[in-house]
Amino acid sequence: MSQESHIVIIGAGFGGLACAKALGVRSPAKSGIDAPPRVTVIDRANYHLFVPLLYQVATAALSPADIARPVRRILGRYRNIDVVLGEATAIDTAERTVITTMGAVGPYDKLVIATGSRYSYFGHDDWAARAKGPRSLEDARAIRTQLLTAFEQADSTTDPVERNRLMTVIVIGGGPTGVEMAGAVAELARHSLARDFRHINPRDTRILLVEAGPRLLNGFPESLAAYAKRALEKLGVTVMLGQPVQDLTERGATIGGAMVPAGTVIWGAGIEAAPGVRMLGVPTDRAGRVAVNPDLSVPGLPGVYVIGDSALTMGDDGKPLPALAQVAAQQGEYLGRALAAEARGRPGAEPFRFHNRGNTAVIGRNAAVFDFGSVHLRGHAAWFLWALVHIYLLIGFENRLSVTLRWIWRYISGESGARLITPGEGASRTP
Amino acid sequence: MSQESHIVIIGAGFGGLACAKALGVRSPAKSGIDAPPRVTVIDRANYHLFVPLLYQVATAALSPADIARPVRRILGRYRNIDVVLGEATAIDTAERTVITTMGAVGPYDKLVIATGSRYSYFGHDDWAARAKGPRSLEDARAIRTQLLTAFEQADSTTDPVERNRLMTVIVIGGGPTGVEMAGAVAELARHSLARDFRHINPRDTRILLVEAGPRLLNGFPESLAAYAKRALEKLGVTVMLGQPVQDLTERGATIGGAMVPAGTVIWGAGIEAAPGVRMLGVPTDRAGRVAVNPDLSVPGLPGVYVIGDSALTMGDDGKPLPALAQVAAQQGEYLGRALAAEARGRPGAEPFRFHNRGNTAVIGRNAAVFDFGSVHLRGHAAWFLWALVHIYLLIGFENRLSVTLRWIWRYISGESGARLITPGEGASRTP
Repeated sequence: MSQESHIVIIGAGFGGLACAKALGVRSPAKSGIDAPPRVTVIDRANYHLFVPLLYQVATAALSPADIARPVRRILGRYRNIDVVLGEATAIDTAERTVITTMGAVGPYDKLVIATGSRYSYFGHDDWAARAKGPRSLEDARAIRTQLLTAFEQADSTTDPVERNRLMTVIVIGGGPTGVEMAGAVAELARHSLARDFRHINPRDTRILLVEAGPRLLNGFPESLAAYAKRALEKLGVTVMLGQPVQDLTERGATIGGAMVPAGTVIWGAGIEAAPGVRMLGVPTDRAGRVAVNPDLSVPGLPGVYVIGDSALTMGDDGKPLPALAQVAAQQGEYLGRALAAEARGRPGAEPFRFHNRGNTAVIGRNAAVFDFGSVHLRGHAAWFLWALVHIYLLIGFENRLSVTLRWIWRYISGESGARLITPGEGASRTP
Repeated sequence: MSQESHIVIIGAGFGGLACAKALGVRSPAKSGIDAPPRVTVIDRANYHLFVPLLYQVATAALSPADIARPVRRILGRYRNIDVVLGEATAIDTAERTVITTMGAVGPYDKLVIATGSRYSYFGHDDWAARAKGPRSLEDARAIRTQLLTAFEQADSTTDPVERNRLMTVIVIGGGPTGVEMAGAVAELARHSLARDFRHINPRDTRILLVEAGPRLLNGFPESLAAYAKRALEKLGVTVMLGQPVQDLTERGATIGGAMVPAGTVIWGAGIEAAPGVRMLGVPTDRAGRVAVNPDLSVPGLPGVYVIGDSALTMGDDGKPLPALAQVAAQQGEYLGRALAAEARGRPGAEPFRFHNRGNTAVIGRNAAVFDFGSVHLRGHAAWFLWALVHIYLLIGFENRLSVTLRWIWRYISGESGARLITPGEGASRTP
């Protein structure tokens, strides 16, 4: 077994999982090769997270368990895949070894970096603590707790000025994340919480969606962006275009020179590659991405690949591919198949090509936009298509079922999820 | 409205909620009285927790959202009930006011203390951090994370001694909680995680159930206790009777003079009243409970009542009633009705009497015990009855449905819940 090749994948997101699955062998005997490549997947979380739906956890529409699945459960069926729950801290490209908090992994024959992206605060790192974005379960929980706690405090305060501050939510960034967060917060306030308080009316919540650029959903067709703006305004969201955020404090945000007091500020303005790729010590672009070859390999580092949000790859139109789950998943599957073919002695893969499966953003119940390039959908049809696609994409039967039921139930009743306020400690039953 | 009476309830557990619901008026007009009592429910968590199923969250069989419901959602339909999300820090029985972290509540005409119970470490308060019990969501999450992390570490360590330690789980206390935890841990190891690891076999997990007394399930009939012991041993649990725990460290527990290294130690040994009742400054018994009058009022404190785990009340057999959800719920409903009648000018309630609905403990899939006093059930029948009863009891349609589906799915597939490892920070997608 010593001559079998060893492929190490860092990151169990959409890219890393797709790559691992394409390399997975359920029964070595049937794999048709004597020694299928040995695969090690490294992730610091024990679960794969369906990030595109995190905003629904942040707004208490879904629960963390609905969109997270154990990595070991997903990959357990593949006999040639090992999972290491640890954080990669260094890569020794000379020794071909990955150093993790659970020990050294390697030597590897091939290394795949699929560590995704994180929110970028344009140099204002201190803003990160004041305006979290729905990128990790912890951040989504933190947003949920901040949102719900603000309503509780508003209900108990007697100071009208403070109440107005607490009942103001600012969402920064007019991309899909910002649009979806603003819409979900509006539904939380107008439907789910509507009848829950005695001293405030959650319907009075002021929701500001702040975008520095001239329009929402940059990258979507103008017509769909205009529809999204109208749909958000119908939900009571105030859309502010051409308004960069100048400052963020514990009490609110400065927009257009004016300080807007807010109880909750949510970030969805921009992303950059996660620090993982920096371990390679190769040049990156302004967004921290590595420009990879057409086969997704890293120039100058034989056997090392970067896929997903951390990779700078070009589409057929010559523009960089966006940081989307479908891009990462397609790159992962492409690379997995290429490496599997190589292990079978059939190298020389075609360059990677992205096949657009459609780009979507949901504004609220019944309202979404869906862009297939040639076809533009919006409204009910887009929402249902969005729902179907996401239910289908959710990994694991149990999740798919329970999420579906939650959605249907919410759709019928207008009720929300469990919306737990979960501080680190002290939320036990007893005062 | 000033002459309407004000009833303050501290705690939104089974007792407090039942009391509030019995006092709740959906439409004041229809209530038949001009001024229905104004009710304020104080709890430091924004959710009601179905504590009897917390052990399933601790073993990743259920998710927190399955057994937690927003208090505001449950009580929102009652127009005369207000909810305060805060921690009661003091009670001024002279001014008839409750001081909370969200401000003062009162003056009250009636005060109901339903703050439940917590685990008792028999004076070893330092043990609390080393062996948590399934009493709050935070503790259940902590147990889950410790359990799952121990398996991960065992899978990655090369030291066989350390691996054995990590794969040893000690459950302290042979009551229903200990029995249910031991059984659930066994199922987690033998079914849910069975195929997930490459370097360890979770089936090898050593599970010790340690009880100081001579038998399990004290309070249940001897025959059911004996059955529970056999059922646990069939699941691979080592039951140690007559073995008090002498010491607890980060590395394990000292039992019978011998140090037993363990990766996880779980506490289910004994409970005491939560500190809430101490705010009354009245005498309590060794378990911190207040001996109340037959109408659940506190001797010497007119208009103040204690219900549920914090109250010392006697059953028809002259023995203290156990700390059970059904006792708390019955006391809450009894008191709520009595106070409602009093508000209608019809005072003078019969003394409280507990009606036993049956006492149950589940050992695992297909195995449980059910004691109705005269009738003793065990095995399949008891398990199904237990499942039906708990599904029925779970508050909120959505929960009932999704829990049912999870159980059925788990029952068919042997798969477990999402079993997330959720550290305070740093479990985001990126290494």
